[in-house]
Amino acid sequence: MFRLIALIAVSALLASSPAYAAANELLALSQTIFKPLPAEPPAIEGNPATPAKLELGKMLFFDPRLSASQLISCNTCHNVGLAGGDLQETSVGHNWQKGPRNAPTVMNAVFNSAQFWDGRAKDLAEQAKGPVQASVEMNNTPERVLETLGSMPEYVDRFAKAFPNEKTPLTFDNVARAIEVFEAVLLTPAPFDSYLRGDASALTDQEKAGLELFINKGCAGCHDGVNVGGSGYFPFGVVEKPGNEVMSADDKGRFQVTNTASDEYVFRAPSLRNVALTAPYFHSGKVWSLQEATSIMGSSQLGISLTPEDEKLLVAFMVSLNGAQPQIVYPLLPVSTAKTPKPILQ
Amino acid sequence: MFRLIALIAVSALLASSPAYAAANELLALSQTIFKPLPAEPPAIEGNPATPAKLELGKMLFFDPRLSASQLISCNTCHNVGLAGGDLQETSVGHNWQKGPRNAPTVMNAVFNSAQFWDGRAKDLAEQAKGPVQASVEMNNTPERVLETLGSMPEYVDRFAKAFPNEKTPLTFDNVARAIEVFEAVLLTPAPFDSYLRGDASALTDQEKAGLELFINKGCAGCHDGVNVGGSGYFPFGVVEKPGNEVMSADDKGRFQVTNTASDEYVFRAPSLRNVALTAPYFHSGKVWSLQEATSIMGSSQLGISLTPEDEKLLVAFMVSLNGAQPQIVYPLLPVSTAKTPKPILQ
Repeated sequence: MFRLIALIAVSALLASSPAYAAANELLALSQTIFKPLPAEPPAIEGNPATPAKLELGKMLFFDPRLSASQLISCNTCHNVGLAGGDLQETSVGHNWQKGPRNAPTVMNAVFNSAQFWDGRAKDLAEQAKGPVQASVEMNNTPERVLETLGSMPEYVDRFAKAFPNEKTPLTFDNVARAIEVFEAVLLTPAPFDSYLRGDASALTDQEKAGLELFINKGCAGCHDGVNVGGSGYFPFGVVEKPGNEVMSADDKGRFQVTNTASDEYVFRAPSLRNVALTAPYFHSGKVWSLQEATSIMGSSQLGISLTPEDEKLLVAFMVSLNGAQPQIVYPLLPVSTAKTPKPILQ
Repeated sequence: MFRLIALIAVSALLASSPAYAAANELLALSQTIFKPLPAEPPAIEGNPATPAKLELGKMLFFDPRLSASQLISCNTCHNVGLAGGDLQETSVGHNWQKGPRNAPTVMNAVFNSAQFWDGRAKDLAEQAKGPVQASVEMNNTPERVLETLGSMPEYVDRFAKAFPNEKTPLTFDNVARAIEVFEAVLLTPAPFDSYLRGDASALTDQEKAGLELFINKGCAGCHDGVNVGGSGYFPFGVVEKPGNEVMSADDKGRFQVTNTASDEYVFRAPSLRNVALTAPYFHSGKVWSLQEATSIMGSSQLGISLTPEDEKLLVAFMVSLNGAQPQIVYPLLPVSTAKTPKPILQ
């Protein structure tokens, strides 16, 4: 709340300055609120990246044999060709079951404070273990994953090389750690990052006007930092709860994790990086238009009614968060052996 | 039949020669039966390859929006990380329906005389149109594919560049043509190709012994040419029909295409390139072991009972058909727009 008041105070100052100074101040102010994406993937505590671990993680990310059906890989719902998401309201998993929530993008997810819409996983490694076991997603068990991977000599060898000082390199934890190391390289530097590094020409005038609105209207109160969101927890909505056409009364968000009344309908504010590339929106995936989602955020979270012009400027700013997507060479996966468990479709 | 007799005659000669001459003769004989994979993709009549068409074809191959659900792409069942097949007995498609036949690999498929197990598509372009529309596969319609692709300006632009002299570049035929050009580059040169080019050391002694058996026992009567199969049509089985645990009485193969009694249970002999990487086997996908599949082929197609040693040698030869898999950079797919049809899950 203090930060929000400070922002409003600074924005008031900004509004009274001449154009050139204002432009500089907008940049300076933005630099206090947001951070550019680092050029290199961050070091992960307790899980150092090596080329062997990175390549293994990529293979696991693309291997449908992490799922019981051997049909669904991480990439099915976090498609690296689709900015790390899927095209569904809520993801579809084992036996064509519809899951409860929209798939968050894997791009830049390493910079989120926690993973899942309700933040129930503290990092990407913990996150990776969830969908593998969820009955509506990959419907597998840790034991079967290890039996599957252990049946292929190439995987056994690659785990030994990725986790060289461990007595038992092939563990479910290490499956998750390797995937985490791969996911941590999925970074998408955007024009907004060049802007934050001081290149004022990296954004168009329209995008800058959108950025100014984004700060002045209070959007940056929740969507800040390196991921322009992804850190704090907030009720949906702060001011006015959206109708059931946008959110389901059954999904109480973080309450399901903490069992604390104040966490009812609380969700982690998503990162807005690549948001224009990852419709549909919200945990429900019920809204397909970014402008409509922006309008709903205005009323539900800020208690304001944005004009269509404001919404368009805000969308223009968000488009400047579209990043250069990572180039991924499709991994060649080891061949199954006689010991590999067979797909289970039902 | 004439070819088979000629082979047996030559093999008899071969058996009477000293070891060194025999080795040379095996190579010379092999060169009359098989052809090495060309270094470059073949030119496709009426569908010249260009970089723009190739890249578009790759995008379409990976785009799940070719399916009604927007969940299934060509790569789902013809996974380039899994030697161009999937891991299923028979492929799983829309609404988790199990299709009738095992997915043939897309690798080197451009050299097959026709596509599908029953040869009902004359080329890869005709093939590509099938799964898109099949209700148990992608369950889409040509109209909806064009509406979907036409809703994304990047695709419209890419079709214009890939088919530059056409009045209407975005057509369902051109979708298939672009995919065909991409699939035609999916070639996997193998040790056997080096051997056929004259490098006798490219195969181990065991692989050569397997190759000799492969010719002498008659396997090469159906599995010959550049794809070591993929050309001729043969009843399953020629001599003895396998039991229902291997083939379903309902699937009458090419009979369903030609409605001709002599085509009952007739299938196109599959290419054996990468066969050791693409279990399970046969159109039914009911057999998971290559040695067992080899044994069944002996009894059903040749009327012989292979010894386990012979089977192992034949498998060793087939392993020499495992090729270097193509390196594919995952394509970045255009973003859906407000005009893009929404996924249809049911």
